[in-house]
Amino acid sequence: MKYYNYENFKNDTNKLIKKVRPLEFEMIVGIARGGLTLAHSMAEGLDIREVQTLRTELYDKTCKREELSIFDSCKFDGEKRVLVVDDIADSGETLDAIMKHLKSKYSDIEFTSAALFYKKTSIYEPDFWINEANEWVEFFWEKDFKEG
Amino acid sequence: MKYYNYENFKNDTNKLIKKVRPLEFEMIVGIARGGLTLAHSMAEGLDIREVQTLRTELYDKTCKREELSIFDSCKFDGEKRVLVVDDIADSGETLDAIMKHLKSKYSDIEFTSAALFYKKTSIYEPDFWINEANEWVEFFWEKDFKEG
Repeated sequence: MKYYNYENFKNDTNKLIKKVRPLEFEMIVGIARGGLTLAHSMAEGLDIREVQTLRTELYDKTCKREELSIFDSCKFDGEKRVLVVDDIADSGETLDAIMKHLKSKYSDIEFTSAALFYKKTSIYEPDFWINEANEWVEFFWEKDFKEG
Repeated sequence: MKYYNYENFKNDTNKLIKKVRPLEFEMIVGIARGGLTLAHSMAEGLDIREVQTLRTELYDKTCKREELSIFDSCKFDGEKRVLVVDDIADSGETLDAIMKHLKSKYSDIEFTSAALFYKKTSIYEPDFWINEANEWVEFFWEKDFKEG
C-alpha cells in the first residue's frame, strides 16, 4: 500500500492543472468524497469559482448484484465546458457511470474527466490522468483525519 | 501575512472534528471555494458520505453598494442535522447570509456552522471555530496550485 501524502498530491495536481488548462473550463464537478480536495485545488489553480459535487452509492439489491446510484444535485446555467474530477479510476465504474449520466442528461455541455490515478484494468480511462496505480493508494485525506 | 500550511490545517481540522463529533451530522455543506478542502477532510474524519457545496458572489450594483448572491444547489432528503463549513469568518457576511438563507429555506433542518478561523470583528460567530485570526491568513490551497 502506498501512502500518498500532501506533497505528492501538490506536485501531481499542479501537473494535472497544466494539462487541462488549455481547455478553459467554466465549472468543476468533484466526485464525493474522493474528488473533493482535488476539485478545490484545481479550482484555485485554474481560477474557476464554480465547484459542485456529485455522489454515488452502491446498493445491495437483495442478494443479487450491486447497483450504482448517482445523486446528482448539479445545477448548470449556460456552462459549455465542465471538468469532472475524481481521485482515482480504479474499477472505473463510478467515473464511467457518472460521465454517461452527465453526457446524456446535459447534452449541451461538454464534459471532460480528470483523475490523479488510473489503473490499467479500469473500464474507463479519464481524459486526463497523471499516475498509473499499480498498488492500493491511501490518500492523505483518508488517513490524516482519523485521529480524533 | 500568515501562511497556513497543510500541517497547520491537519492539526486544526482534527481539533474541529473532535469538537463537532458529538452532534452527529448527516451531511456537510462546504462553502465554495474556501470551505471545500475542509468539508472533504471533516467528512472523512466524521465518516459522513454526503457533501454538497454552496457558493456566493458579490455583485456590484451600478456604483451603489455590493450585494451578496447565494447560489444554492443543495438537495436535502430527510436530513435533520447539517454541518456548514468555511475556512474563515472574516467580515462574516458570507456565513451570516448563508446561515440565514439555509435556516429560512429549510426550516425543518438544524444547521450548525464551523470554521477554522474567526475574526473578532466578524458580524457572525461560527458555532465552532479553532483560531482567532489577527492577521491575513493565506491558506495553502490559495498558494500551492498557482505554479503552473
